[in-house]
Amino acid sequence: MSIRHSVIIDCDPGQDDAVALLMAYGSRDELDIRGITTVAGNVPLRLTQENARRVTELAGITDIPIYAGCARPIMRDLVTAEWIHGATGLDGCGLPDASMSLADGHAVDFIVDTCLAAADGEMTLAPTGPLTNIAMAIVKEPAILPKIREIVLMGGAMDHGNTTPAAEFNIYVDPHAAHVVFECGRPVVMLGLDVTHKAITTPARLDAIKRLGTPVSDSVAGMLTFYNKYDIDRYGMEGGPLHDPCVIAYLLRPELFSGRHVHVAIDTKSELSMGKTVVDWWDGNDQAANATVIDRIDADGFYALLTERLARV
Amino acid sequence: MSIRHSVIIDCDPGQDDAVALLMAYGSRDELDIRGITTVAGNVPLRLTQENARRVTELAGITDIPIYAGCARPIMRDLVTAEWIHGATGLDGCGLPDASMSLADGHAVDFIVDTCLAAADGEMTLAPTGPLTNIAMAIVKEPAILPKIREIVLMGGAMDHGNTTPAAEFNIYVDPHAAHVVFECGRPVVMLGLDVTHKAITTPARLDAIKRLGTPVSDSVAGMLTFYNKYDIDRYGMEGGPLHDPCVIAYLLRPELFSGRHVHVAIDTKSELSMGKTVVDWWDGNDQAANATVIDRIDADGFYALLTERLARV
Amino acid sequence: MSIRHSVIIDCDPGQDDAVALLMAYGSRDELDIRGITTVAGNVPLRLTQENARRVTELAGITDIPIYAGCARPIMRDLVTAEWIHGATGLDGCGLPDASMSLADGHAVDFIVDTCLAAADGEMTLAPTGPLTNIAMAIVKEPAILPKIREIVLMGGAMDHGNTTPAAEFNIYVDPHAAHVVFECGRPVVMLGLDVTHKAITTPARLDAIKRLGTPVSDSVAGMLTFYNKYDIDRYGMEGGPLHDPCVIAYLLRPELFSGRHVHVAIDTKSELSMGKTVVDWWDGNDQAANATVIDRIDADGFYALLTERLARV
Amino acid sequence: MSIRHSVIIDCDPGQDDAVALLMAYGSRDELDIRGITTVAGNVPLRLTQENARRVTELAGITDIPIYAGCARPIMRDLVTAEWIHGATGLDGCGLPDASMSLADGHAVDFIVDTCLAAADGEMTLAPTGPLTNIAMAIVKEPAILPKIREIVLMGGAMDHGNTTPAAEFNIYVDPHAAHVVFECGRPVVMLGLDVTHKAITTPARLDAIKRLGTPVSDSVAGMLTFYNKYDIDRYGMEGGPLHDPCVIAYLLRPELFSGRHVHVAIDTKSELSMGKTVVDWWDGNDQAANATVIDRIDADGFYALLTERLARV
Repeated sequence: MSIRHSVIIDCDPGQDDAVALLMAYGSRDELDIRGITTVAGNVPLRLTQENARRVTELAGITDIPIYAGCARPIMRDLVTAEWIHGATGLDGCGLPDASMSLADGHAVDFIVDTCLAAADGEMTLAPTGPLTNIAMAIVKEPAILPKIREIVLMGGAMDHGNTTPAAEFNIYVDPHAAHVVFECGRPVVMLGLDVTHKAITTPARLDAIKRLGTPVSDSVAGMLTFYNKYDIDRYGMEGGPLHDPCVIAYLLRPELFSGRHVHVAIDTKSELSMGKTVVDWWDGNDQAANATVIDRIDADGFYALLTERLARV
Repeated sequence: MSIRHSVIIDCDPGQDDAVALLMAYGSRDELDIRGITTVAGNVPLRLTQENARRVTELAGITDIPIYAGCARPIMRDLVTAEWIHGATGLDGCGLPDASMSLADGHAVDFIVDTCLAAADGEMTLAPTGPLTNIAMAIVKEPAILPKIREIVLMGGAMDHGNTTPAAEFNIYVDPHAAHVVFECGRPVVMLGLDVTHKAITTPARLDAIKRLGTPVSDSVAGMLTFYNKYDIDRYGMEGGPLHDPCVIAYLLRPELFSGRHVHVAIDTKSELSMGKTVVDWWDGNDQAANATVIDRIDADGFYALLTERLARV
Repeated sequence: MSIRHSVIIDCDPGQDDAVALLMAYGSRDELDIRGITTVAGNVPLRLTQENARRVTELAGITDIPIYAGCARPIMRDLVTAEWIHGATGLDGCGLPDASMSLADGHAVDFIVDTCLAAADGEMTLAPTGPLTNIAMAIVKEPAILPKIREIVLMGGAMDHGNTTPAAEFNIYVDPHAAHVVFECGRPVVMLGLDVTHKAITTPARLDAIKRLGTPVSDSVAGMLTFYNKYDIDRYGMEGGPLHDPCVIAYLLRPELFSGRHVHVAIDTKSELSMGKTVVDWWDGNDQAANATVIDRIDADGFYALLTERLARV
Repeated sequence: MSIRHSVIIDCDPGQDDAVALLMAYGSRDELDIRGITTVAGNVPLRLTQENARRVTELAGITDIPIYAGCARPIMRDLVTAEWIHGATGLDGCGLPDASMSLADGHAVDFIVDTCLAAADGEMTLAPTGPLTNIAMAIVKEPAILPKIREIVLMGGAMDHGNTTPAAEFNIYVDPHAAHVVFECGRPVVMLGLDVTHKAITTPARLDAIKRLGTPVSDSVAGMLTFYNKYDIDRYGMEGGPLHDPCVIAYLLRPELFSGRHVHVAIDTKSELSMGKTVVDWWDGNDQAANATVIDRIDADGFYALLTERLARV
């Protein structure tokens, strides 16, 4: 049994972010979604906030505000990933332009204000993009920290990165923000490539989604077909890893996952290792654990849950 | 002849920040002071915002809002300098607790909102502490950049630092913020130790201030007597360098200063050189100039101006 | 079919180095062993050179010279690993003190002189410890490079390190030397933890060695029993990984191994990632391949070969 | 009164190295010059060793052996400075090719062997180029350390570098070697740009040398005329700084110099600050002093001494 999270989803859609949003939207009995905040990442902010609105409209949702946040990482030049996501970030989705409005105000302020208004330990933050917005909120207003139950994020890799040999994309794009988040003192759950590369969208799993036969499943199937191409071509996999929905699945069914409570440090000193999540898996240094690093998933259970929730949207 | 600046002074009082504020308050014919923003630095934020209010009350000013900003640097643990400034940050000032209120809202938002409401090139930012607030404003809302005329800051050192052998205090405390500011693309004027160590509060100069015989001059004399002790003891100087008022003097009488338009980079990679302002004084690398680094001052002219302006408060 | 290598084995015995030496000594039909050079690593140089002589005496070999080399890494303080190897570096071996003499001269000079006297591409270097001696030879006399056929080394890890979360022991001890070796322009074969952790001394494999019933097998069994304890306790494995003999096995039967020809860089900039072998397994950066990184082994074939060769000593 | 040093001069001629050699050759009553070792630096090793021989022949000296050493820095690609020294490294000298032979053996071995044969504290090392040979000798044979009285070197800068904004040439070329030397535990005297830029070859001083009217003075005048051009053009100085002869002057008349015994660290972590000599001039960190950093010189006394000694050659 999972707890009912009051959650802000911070994202940079991105097809996998879009699927994560739809999975969350199909789970509103279990998730109290306070708002969606967007950040520059897979594509520039102008597109990620637009894409979040397109997906929310697809779900027919009008009561969850969508905010635009930081258009750039804290220190480094923005790196985007159009070679994976296409020029729009949602290539393959078949969705029209968004007509719903952005919420007024800045994503960082929405995060700060929502947390400050919450009870201690009430809020869960669920970032699926670079951690700029979350880190900016923590630096701007450290008083939000006691209000945070946990930060469940997609990012990082113990083993190979996917952007450099050392680093995964979300952490590489804003490693300084990642440092702020991992060092913030609140519980962090890291769902990195170690687990998401075990959550492959095989043809059979994609077919199960397609068989839902809804506008949502059509759009998801279109997006994943586009999105999987890169990983299938590069890694010779049967399908692509479905990174960001793992965050939503963890909120709903943490028992589908396992990992270790360990120390994670972010390399911000070496260009070679920039953005590496250095995970002390074997407890070899003397630093206190600051994150739960997930490396295992019941992938069939995860895809069954995803399909079920997409059916509900 | 100087231009009339519309300015936000971002500070961490600190005795020299306090003297800078008073110098600015005595120059309101020439400076349109939109607000004072405070940041953690010489002492924690709780004290710097209080100290800004104490000094503003001393000046009898009620129409300039004072904001609290960031309580911590972006990436690193806060380092403060009570060994120079005393436990309160204003030891020696003889001032009571502040009774005026802090302005509502966060310093970062005040900077963002004031800039966004301004015309292109209208605003001057005058930071005399760590650059956290300024950098956070730039990262949160890059649209403020065209509104900024210039950023005239106290910080850095070409030669020896004063906090580590490599780094000056303001840059050392938040080197990542300094990187954001120096790389922001707007004109930066760096008034570092290279110039402030040529602006020594000799006994004769201190006497000239004392002879004003006003409550303001009494308080300034008390602060500087306390504040100079550290440098007199450490460096065997005749008096202490008066860092932060150089920023105000530069706004009022830039002709008192000279320097070079060069490339400055901030070291954030090496613990040994952390926060070093690496100044390409001899144009040896191929990077475009991004700052005017000041290394000369007409110190007598500066102290005459300071004394005159303190007399006006 | 393997080629017949003319080889210098550079080692820091260490039980697994000792087994590597014995495996090589049982393979003299196939390996022309020009000399053994020793370096500080698992234990200080005073012990590694002594241990090399003890093992060589156990094998009854008198015609292979043994040299002492560098007693310290190039840049960093020596780190040793007595917690794995015991105070002597060969705990469990049951061997007496060495009576054979060290060869006159320095290991670095032996490497240089032997290479300079060889034909182009004649010499194989087989380091199983920190790469100090090899790097020093390259820096001292770059003219040795064309004489080197390949450098087959034990060291590094794509995934977790065993000394820090980022770094494997041999590379961590002298990362600057490792940089020199990987950048030297000659073929490098890296046998790191990615493969050696797939070469576990299970009880069955250890029993096969014990059943040889020779003084050599008794000593090897004693050493491995001691040596495996650490890994069994730490990692919960069935036995310990047998790192260094993989180098000898690769020289004898490269077909037992497979991997990729990729770019490897050594992190020497960040303390967090110091000594990390950053392996571009997926060819994501644009740097030319400089090493063959081995990640697969026919472990049963390897242990069969090891047992057979130990039987010949 | 100076002590009589038994000295090895390690150099990379370079015009200023050449003048240093000639100054030493004119001081053989006071200096027991055991040998000259050469290293890659101002120009490649092939030229520096040739140039050392040309200068030695000019002095008519046949009993001081000249060795070739390392042709490359330990870790980094060789950077040379032909734009200052000309294509030969001795442009302007008017000297023929060398006919005397190089001594057999490697400079590193000559340093090691000479030191090992000396009494404790007998040997002075006087490097005027990158510190590769000295560092290699220390790493190869740490037993030389007690034999070293002191290492008096030209290199480093507290303030601006001359190769990058952060670093002086000799240290920049091989910062890892510099780290080894400064951390070796023996007394180090650092004569960097802080002092050598106070030892300017003004026209009057150059004239005094010219007036000697010897083949040596003719060659020196020719070299310095060529060599000074770069600094005169770049820095607008009256003449060029005469770096390397300061080392010889310090050995002969240390009373011409003054400085402080402080901690010096070499930055090898940050590309921006690579090779910076971070000098704790104000004793702000807690690390023990490891070098005497010279910042003052009696420049007239220095040039008088130089001219006198050149007259004796």
